[in-house]
Amino acid sequence: MALSGIRALVFDVFGTVVDWRSTVIAEGRALAARQGASGAQAGACGEASARVAQAWSQVDWAAFADAWRAGYPLAMDRVRRGEWPWASIDVLHRRILDELLAGRALALAEQEAADFNRVWHRLAPWPDSVPGLLRLKRLHPVATLSNGNVSLLLAMARHAGLPWDAIFSAELFGHYKPDPQCYQGAARLLDLAPAQVLMVAAHPSDLRGAARAGLRTAYVPRPLERGPGGPMEPWTPGEFDLVACDFIDLARQLGG
Amino acid sequence: MALSGIRALVFDVFGTVVDWRSTVIAEGRALAARQGASGAQAGACGEASARVAQAWSQVDWAAFADAWRAGYPLAMDRVRRGEWPWASIDVLHRRILDELLAGRALALAEQEAADFNRVWHRLAPWPDSVPGLLRLKRLHPVATLSNGNVSLLLAMARHAGLPWDAIFSAELFGHYKPDPQCYQGAARLLDLAPAQVLMVAAHPSDLRGAARAGLRTAYVPRPLERGPGGPMEPWTPGEFDLVACDFIDLARQLGG
Repeated sequence: MALSGIRALVFDVFGTVVDWRSTVIAEGRALAARQGASGAQAGACGEASARVAQAWSQVDWAAFADAWRAGYPLAMDRVRRGEWPWASIDVLHRRILDELLAGRALALAEQEAADFNRVWHRLAPWPDSVPGLLRLKRLHPVATLSNGNVSLLLAMARHAGLPWDAIFSAELFGHYKPDPQCYQGAARLLDLAPAQVLMVAAHPSDLRGAARAGLRTAYVPRPLERGPGGPMEPWTPGEFDLVACDFIDLARQLGG
Repeated sequence: MALSGIRALVFDVFGTVVDWRSTVIAEGRALAARQGASGAQAGACGEASARVAQAWSQVDWAAFADAWRAGYPLAMDRVRRGEWPWASIDVLHRRILDELLAGRALALAEQEAADFNRVWHRLAPWPDSVPGLLRLKRLHPVATLSNGNVSLLLAMARHAGLPWDAIFSAELFGHYKPDPQCYQGAARLLDLAPAQVLMVAAHPSDLRGAARAGLRTAYVPRPLERGPGGPMEPWTPGEFDLVACDFIDLARQLGG
């Protein structure tokens, strides 16, 4: 593969750089424990508080995380088709969260709901993400190219220690991936031709969007993204410029 | 000063974070030495090469740097008034450079001119800039808010080790500072109210633009920006929320 012309790397983030599922599950369980405990402490009305505690204890947080994540492309597609006006991922995540809670007859005070919605700002990186990015950025600039909004990506980078050179987001272009405006917009801001930019993602559909926009593509499968044995998007060997096991392997393949 | 509500800092870059003048002078002198030497080496036509070497040796690089910098707000104003279509600072810098060279009967090959134009990507930080930013970013996110284009700011950050959390540029908003769209656009991308954002600059006119857009302001004078004893914009004590000697003093005043 003639990847010698690569001058910058842009990364999908949710699932590619950070493990959204484990973090949402862990924070959901901690939230449920707090809600159960505070229901029990309310005391006076024993039966009602027991019902609240039971409702929270019965949530399947893996299913909740998967449902939260599954709602996000559907919501984005409504924005992409023009059915909804532009809304940030923070706003879309919150709409989905409110529906999921209501569907389970769970209630959170506004501040608790706003804080839980920001779990997406606190996602843990995959173990190779930070050391891999540090190696990759010695070779080339590394930037996000995510549907997450800028403030979310910035907070996540500070929380997780992700050493981005720049934060590029669908929010800058008013278009969600896989719309070509995102990929081409990132190349334009980098002052590079699309073919000088390598898109790194765990999702073949994202990489196909990048390739249609003229970018080069690196597929980094994350088999644990949807849990052990979870589903993965199908792909065809040879359809991407590069396939790497993780970011350290990617750095090695790029000569770093 | 009630600065407890500050949640992020945005920085002017040229002059505030980096010392454009010293770097342009140093690179100009090195370029002149190379051009003089290559003229001398050409050999065959002794008189012509001596004239080239003399023309390069006579350039006053401090005046050249000042003229290059002085051309930039004039060029930006033509964009701001709509007389020129949007053009990046790289493009504006190049137009000014070509005029300055022509005015001195100096010629550069295209690649040399393009490389010298990128001196603005290689500017040296003031001595306190990197340690100060590292302290400030422990308190709050730190981002550029510069008229420089994104690729220039990104290259400069990698060259100088500037630890930005995000790179915001006039290029993202299609408006140059001090247009309010720049300042308000940065606050919007940070998902903050303008009053939660502190603009840091060595230029009172920039800070006044920020204040008109609702941001808080920190003035960090850089008395050496235009050389020892060089001119500085006038300002009135009390007109900014904060005045600091350098970025380390700024961090101290903000409690870091």
